[in-house]
Amino acid sequence: MNAGTDVALNTIWVVIAAAMVLFMEGGFSLLEAGFVRTKNAVNVTMKIFVDLTVGVLAFFLIGFGIMFGKDYGGLISFNFWGASQSLHIDFNLPLSAYVLFQIGFAIAAISIISGAVAERMSFKAYILIAVFVAAILYPISGHWVWNPDGWLAQLGMKDFAGSAAIHALGGSAALAFAKVLGPRRGRFNTDGDVNVFAPSNIPLASAGTFILWFGWFGFNAGSTLSASDVNLSIIALNTMLAAAAGGTSAMIYTMFRYGKADPSMTMNGALAGLVAITAGCAFVTPYSSILIGLVAGLLVIWGTLAIDKLQVDDPVGAVAVHGINGSFGTLAVGLLDQKEGLLTTGQFHLLGVQLLGVIVVVVWGYVLSYGAAKVIEATVGLRVNDAEEEEGLDMAMHGIPAYNELERFSDQPGMDPSLLLKTGSGD
Amino acid sequence: MNAGTDVALNTIWVVIAAAMVLFMEGGFSLLEAGFVRTKNAVNVTMKIFVDLTVGVLAFFLIGFGIMFGKDYGGLISFNFWGASQSLHIDFNLPLSAYVLFQIGFAIAAISIISGAVAERMSFKAYILIAVFVAAILYPISGHWVWNPDGWLAQLGMKDFAGSAAIHALGGSAALAFAKVLGPRRGRFNTDGDVNVFAPSNIPLASAGTFILWFGWFGFNAGSTLSASDVNLSIIALNTMLAAAAGGTSAMIYTMFRYGKADPSMTMNGALAGLVAITAGCAFVTPYSSILIGLVAGLLVIWGTLAIDKLQVDDPVGAVAVHGINGSFGTLAVGLLDQKEGLLTTGQFHLLGVQLLGVIVVVVWGYVLSYGAAKVIEATVGLRVNDAEEEEGLDMAMHGIPAYNELERFSDQPGMDPSLLLKTGSGD
Amino acid sequence: MNAGTDVALNTIWVVIAAAMVLFMEGGFSLLEAGFVRTKNAVNVTMKIFVDLTVGVLAFFLIGFGIMFGKDYGGLISFNFWGASQSLHIDFNLPLSAYVLFQIGFAIAAISIISGAVAERMSFKAYILIAVFVAAILYPISGHWVWNPDGWLAQLGMKDFAGSAAIHALGGSAALAFAKVLGPRRGRFNTDGDVNVFAPSNIPLASAGTFILWFGWFGFNAGSTLSASDVNLSIIALNTMLAAAAGGTSAMIYTMFRYGKADPSMTMNGALAGLVAITAGCAFVTPYSSILIGLVAGLLVIWGTLAIDKLQVDDPVGAVAVHGINGSFGTLAVGLLDQKEGLLTTGQFHLLGVQLLGVIVVVVWGYVLSYGAAKVIEATVGLRVNDAEEEEGLDMAMHGIPAYNELERFSDQPGMDPSLLLKTGSGD
Repeated sequence: MNAGTDVALNTIWVVIAAAMVLFMEGGFSLLEAGFVRTKNAVNVTMKIFVDLTVGVLAFFLIGFGIMFGKDYGGLISFNFWGASQSLHIDFNLPLSAYVLFQIGFAIAAISIISGAVAERMSFKAYILIAVFVAAILYPISGHWVWNPDGWLAQLGMKDFAGSAAIHALGGSAALAFAKVLGPRRGRFNTDGDVNVFAPSNIPLASAGTFILWFGWFGFNAGSTLSASDVNLSIIALNTMLAAAAGGTSAMIYTMFRYGKADPSMTMNGALAGLVAITAGCAFVTPYSSILIGLVAGLLVIWGTLAIDKLQVDDPVGAVAVHGINGSFGTLAVGLLDQKEGLLTTGQFHLLGVQLLGVIVVVVWGYVLSYGAAKVIEATVGLRVNDAEEEEGLDMAMHGIPAYNELERFSDQPGMDPSLLLKTGSGD
Repeated sequence: MNAGTDVALNTIWVVIAAAMVLFMEGGFSLLEAGFVRTKNAVNVTMKIFVDLTVGVLAFFLIGFGIMFGKDYGGLISFNFWGASQSLHIDFNLPLSAYVLFQIGFAIAAISIISGAVAERMSFKAYILIAVFVAAILYPISGHWVWNPDGWLAQLGMKDFAGSAAIHALGGSAALAFAKVLGPRRGRFNTDGDVNVFAPSNIPLASAGTFILWFGWFGFNAGSTLSASDVNLSIIALNTMLAAAAGGTSAMIYTMFRYGKADPSMTMNGALAGLVAITAGCAFVTPYSSILIGLVAGLLVIWGTLAIDKLQVDDPVGAVAVHGINGSFGTLAVGLLDQKEGLLTTGQFHLLGVQLLGVIVVVVWGYVLSYGAAKVIEATVGLRVNDAEEEEGLDMAMHGIPAYNELERFSDQPGMDPSLLLKTGSGD
Repeated sequence: MNAGTDVALNTIWVVIAAAMVLFMEGGFSLLEAGFVRTKNAVNVTMKIFVDLTVGVLAFFLIGFGIMFGKDYGGLISFNFWGASQSLHIDFNLPLSAYVLFQIGFAIAAISIISGAVAERMSFKAYILIAVFVAAILYPISGHWVWNPDGWLAQLGMKDFAGSAAIHALGGSAALAFAKVLGPRRGRFNTDGDVNVFAPSNIPLASAGTFILWFGWFGFNAGSTLSASDVNLSIIALNTMLAAAAGGTSAMIYTMFRYGKADPSMTMNGALAGLVAITAGCAFVTPYSSILIGLVAGLLVIWGTLAIDKLQVDDPVGAVAVHGINGSFGTLAVGLLDQKEGLLTTGQFHLLGVQLLGVIVVVVWGYVLSYGAAKVIEATVGLRVNDAEEEEGLDMAMHGIPAYNELERFSDQPGMDPSLLLKTGSGD
């Protein structure tokens, strides 16, 4: 049986876009593994695999139905086992394509958190957090913003591909978890000074950035959910221009302010541009996209410094990239939207709605995550112990280092090979 | 001249899917380079380049015509120079798109083998094996399963994207070659104990896993060969869910059984889920896909331990991932197919056909490869010598280490820079 | 509002292809970071980010309008702020999709240069060069070849996806910049002998190659700009076959000539095949594509040796891959074009036009770049000083090493952490 041409076209478009979005998990993984210290690179990688495994199942089985099922009071739905329920939304698209695409979005929200809690969170705690975010935190606020009957959607909030619903949410949750976790050992001196933990592998981090950038075309342009949306290619172009502008301003700023073009900041600047254009890519002009990107590239630098001042330890800059620029990008729609923006049309209404939406999402993300962190801390524990942290989470949690140049592991007394493999040695 | 809309839609769909499948070679390469010891990382990379170069030409010039040309007795075809012959199959798709897609499949079958023979096979022997697999081994059994007149196809065997035709075949061939090659030096003690050779670069292996995962959407959903197949997005969703489930069960199992979440097993678990769903992605429900994935994630662990017990040395777990889970996935169609599955409909017929198909493909792959290995061993030689193995195949075969942090190679007496470059030095 | 099916189909095709082309920047980055010495791996990465940021904005704002705006005398256009101007070209495609695709092409031209000038060019000079190439050099000769009113286009030059317009141009510019820059310290002895600087990270370089290969399907097949072009899948198949053939001949040649299969040359051989088929992928048969690839794989080896003899230092082989094979590929159309090729039809005309086109593009690229290099050298300076070169550009220009296995940077006296991060430490 064949689908009609329109449905077929939309289906391949959304499936390809979904594959690109899911590939972004690889981007998160390599970026974070490159930014953290060598001794924790396996652990951050494994956290992304938690998102891609446990997180996917949790969203598929629970989260999707809460987010997109039949609405109750603009607040929530209870259509669990979502994918088997009829969807309370009507697209010219098979439900399965839509579910797959939304899975990619949900786990992106989780992965934002993984970077901020790197290098000291217990692995079991992270698994619980992944389930919490995929099944509860993200679907509920996502329901408000993206379910057509959600209360923020009904107010007219515009968040095309999720600067608020995903990035501001993920960033504020990341802030809460990082705050409760506390900083890595030795990160802040008693006088408040910051000790620098340099990234362990810049080429690896760059590979992650390139994959994220590539996937973002699926993320933003795929959010049309329709191949015949006339905005599709403008969305893609705006995405590119904002990323280029974000990288430009961050790179040039660090050159002039500090004398050296900073690699981490350049990458995070491009990513900040991508985050910031995510809400507005369908609503603003290419020139506005450049403007949004240029601001985002600066905000990510100032934001990183501000988070440091707050003595919150965010090893990869996730709060600055996703939280601050997700919020900024959502507000920027209120300023630059071609039909209702304050600067473009003089109307205040949309900006007010966007501001309300951002505040709601950020408060929701922060407060609920803070509570979840406290509950986990009091029960299974949130943080590894000092010895584990000092040794590095790779050996402590996974029994294997990221990079092993030794010929034969079993010849190295005192090192602990992959337990499974050891166990496989004949017992 | 323009193609009709349907053909155009199918063409871009299959070309994009083919590009994704071919990109999976990068996944194999990085995964294997990360899993083997540092001193052999260049060599496994080069083997993938053999697949992508010699292997591609061999399949294009010989294999394709054997596999998809005019059938003789359900067994074989002799339309060499395949791509220039009229195809004995009728699609609403240009022949060139189909050939490109099939090239990606053929070299995936070869690449499965490259991991199992890593760290001790002679490079010349591998080139011969790549030609053997691309031109003879895979096309003939592929003819049985996928040529519409092939005898297994005529029996009603269901192998949508190749759990049997590619993965079980590649895995059984890998087992034969690894068996004849013998284990790496020092891998097994005389008492049968296994010595662990730890993976050299986990982030690199993870990058390979992410690329494979991304490409698999092209592999499975692209096998529709038609953008208007209503199953297309369900196939993609099933692919994702099985991978997530495979990673979940492998990760959770290692956590509970061994106390640590094992990175290699988590990655191989996700890949096992992908392999296992490859036959049935178009025929089973999303919930069945999760079930298949969960089982696959456990089978890959137990399978790895079993291969070790057999004293066969498979450095990357290719036999467990592809051979065992390819077989399991093919049988799972017989159990869970929505129209003919034993558990879903009570019918035994399909399961019987699937079982026959798996046995045929596995025996074919193992026996022919065993013979080929013996012939190569007796002629050009199959294995490097002990000194080369000890030194590592990177220096011995390619004159260059994977990672070189020395400033200037020529300042390092005793090391052997890339011969070509040296020769370029002016002689 | 919905676009018609044809436009929708073309739009998603070109947007996906553009994303793949832009992802090639990641390929350039990883390939170059793997081929240079460790101490300069961050710097080459950052140069690619210059292309992706400053380069993108320069082409969007200036270059695109020069290249594709209303023609003056076959030579140039002055429609700056290109994307906001009506395009002087008529496609069944939104302008924004076309602009995005062309951005990917423009920055590919720049990135070719980045490898040839690696390890000794000042970062500021590179930023100026990126703007020069994106805004002036590439758009003007691109206008000649690809603007329908350009003088070479009017003569009937055939350069489907840019063997001349991008690769020969980028390669000849790379030669000029490398020539003016001079070789890396210690590269050539006073007697003309070449000292080998071995690649620092082969798996990383292979990852770059795989990404480039993947993106090239978008590069070549996407250049149809139409999903209903009947050639689309032949183009993709030809692309694959030429790459496979290029890698084959380079690998086999190094095995027989030097006794070892050379990894760098195998990768560059595959890339050379891709470069060489770029002009003719829409015009030649699959068998001609294999032939073109086989020749390209040899040309890249002989070309590399020839560049060395000229005492020009090209760390990654960019001139041989892109310049020499871009030129060869353009001429190969004159030989093997199915309608007008000399060897296929006996006609000389097309070969003459192609030869003229190549000469014009190469001379333009070399002369203008040579002049630009001299101007930059005399003003802001082209090259880092000896101490910076010895230390490596990573620490000198960016304050951070590529790979940092130290636990805490601030504990290591004498090392210079990322300045921004240090400054973030509380002052």
